Amino acid sequence: MSRNASESNLAFRDALVSAHILAPSGVQGVYGKGPKFVAVFDGLDRFVTAAGRADEPEVFRFPAVLSRETLVRTDYLRSFPDLVGSIHGFEGSDADHAALLRSVADGSDWSVPLAPTDLVLQPAACYPLYPMAGGALPEGGRLFDVLGTCFRHEPSDDPARMQAFHMHEFVHLGTPDSALAFRDRWLFRSQQMMDDLGLTVTPEIANDPFFGRAGSMLAASQRERALKFELLATVSSAERPTAIVSCNCHLDHLTVPFGITLADGGIAHSACVGFGLERISLALFAAHGFEPDRWPRDVRKRLWQ
Amino acid sequence: MSRNASESNLAFRDALVSAHILAPSGVQGVYGKGPKFVAVFDGLDRFVTAAGRADEPEVFRFPAVLSRETLVRTDYLRSFPDLVGSIHGFEGSDADHAALLRSVADGSDWSVPLAPTDLVLQPAACYPLYPMAGGALPEGGRLFDVLGTCFRHEPSDDPARMQAFHMHEFVHLGTPDSALAFRDRWLFRSQQMMDDLGLTVTPEIANDPFFGRAGSMLAASQRERALKFELLATVSSAERPTAIVSCNCHLDHLTVPFGITLADGGIAHSACVGFGLERISLALFAAHGFEPDRWPRDVRKRLWQ
Repeated sequence: MSRNASESNLAFRDALVSAHILAPSGVQGVYGKGPKFVAVFDGLDRFVTAAGRADEPEVFRFPAVLSRETLVRTDYLRSFPDLVGSIHGFEGSDADHAALLRSVADGSDWSVPLAPTDLVLQPAACYPLYPMAGGALPEGGRLFDVLGTCFRHEPSDDPARMQAFHMHEFVHLGTPDSALAFRDRWLFRSQQMMDDLGLTVTPEIANDPFFGRAGSMLAASQRERALKFELLATVSSAERPTAIVSCNCHLDHLTVPFGITLADGGIAHSACVGFGLERISLALFAAHGFEPDRWPRDVRKRLWQ
Repeated sequence: MSRNASESNLAFRDALVSAHILAPSGVQGVYGKGPKFVAVFDGLDRFVTAAGRADEPEVFRFPAVLSRETLVRTDYLRSFPDLVGSIHGFEGSDADHAALLRSVADGSDWSVPLAPTDLVLQPAACYPLYPMAGGALPEGGRLFDVLGTCFRHEPSDDPARMQAFHMHEFVHLGTPDSALAFRDRWLFRSQQMMDDLGLTVTPEIANDPFFGRAGSMLAASQRERALKFELLATVSSAERPTAIVSCNCHLDHLTVPFGITLADGGIAHSACVGFGLERISLALFAAHGFEPDRWPRDVRKRLWQ
């Protein structure tokens, strides 16, 4: 990252903290949200919900934790091992507990006796849907509205890159054609939505941050096939805009592993649009200032009507 | 647990799953929430928010993850080691990644090379507040509205005992007298609220589930001092009612470790009321049936007016 971008990140973060919009937690990329942020976030979430309501999605909400087995089946560990949050717990005796407390008192690593649970942190809001939707789809496929607490282990000073964040997604399961059409419809619709909020966005072909040497080939292939589009906006830095919305075709990557098929048994595809609620909220603060009461009337009306 | 209570738990859980109110995840105590549950949950959250609004709390929202250092300072590891969720991540090379993927392919434990991050799962919605509120309180103390995603590692077949759940809390920091008065005011107010929702609740002196042999003394002391009250209602089993609201005095247990003092430097106390949003939602389904459209008009009005 350029020195200028890094300085922009820190300056924006410090300004947000000074304005009591974000509260630092002592850990990079983990923040409390103050009253102004909560008001914007909640208004934005309603705005996103309303944008999808006409299509009558099935509304599901999942916890921040995901079955370890489900994560393995998504093949996430192949692509993004560095972002995983694995949950470990204590199942010891009174004596083990005493030893753990001695480690705490010594300031040494008290997590040594912990063992992996059957849970991990959810990296994407739509992952819990796929095991639930296994089997043959109805004609026309299925459409979901999901809002999830996601985790990606990537500590950063950029307030737009949080380790814990919320994605509000609409997810379609259907034919290859309907999945592509869904993605393209939302690519258009989401640009209109961001425009309605007074945000200037640029759509770009993008790739996921695949890990390691093999990852660069996966990224190149994803870009070549134009599977992922992102809407970029200024958040921490005008020079290095941030993806605030993504529109994705997953092909059969998440349907085949979970036995999701078309009504006739054919191969189903999935697609999703994801609204990064924290990032869009921060883009609004960056665009319109730190006093939501003074934001343009149209924007306020759309968020809090 | 008695055989009857266990049967009640399973019967209630299976009925909720059949009615598409809960979706199983493959892990005990971790569920997706279907459209009906989401509508009830969201209405209930607004009802709780509205009940506290007149007191003009500072509204904060925190992520599901908490600084490991903060957890240590709360002394949670002494009392509830068995409930902790510690987050571990991967910081290895391409070669380490290849080894991890071989473990996945073999079906062996792929978490071996993971190392503890500086984060844990948040066990209580109010914990992130205390480090943020360090220093001298203003006259009259402070009042917060927090809604948090909590985690406790206690797999159970009882749908009322989820590993991942949401607490909506109001938290007061102030004098010993004002903390006690706050707790008692909410003990009264929360009973009225549950009555307004058509729920029959019983207030009881309670204790936290302290770990191990030393824990039983802590529990006895907490009960003797009447620090914790719970409102019990029928959720999975009429024989074994479930705590759906808790009203707690923490004394100086969470203020002293974080340097929170009165304006004059004296010892501050904290108190909170916590509404278990999933448990109250399930109590509503248990009391009024699985079709929220047919719930009593007064209850519907309060949730969705």
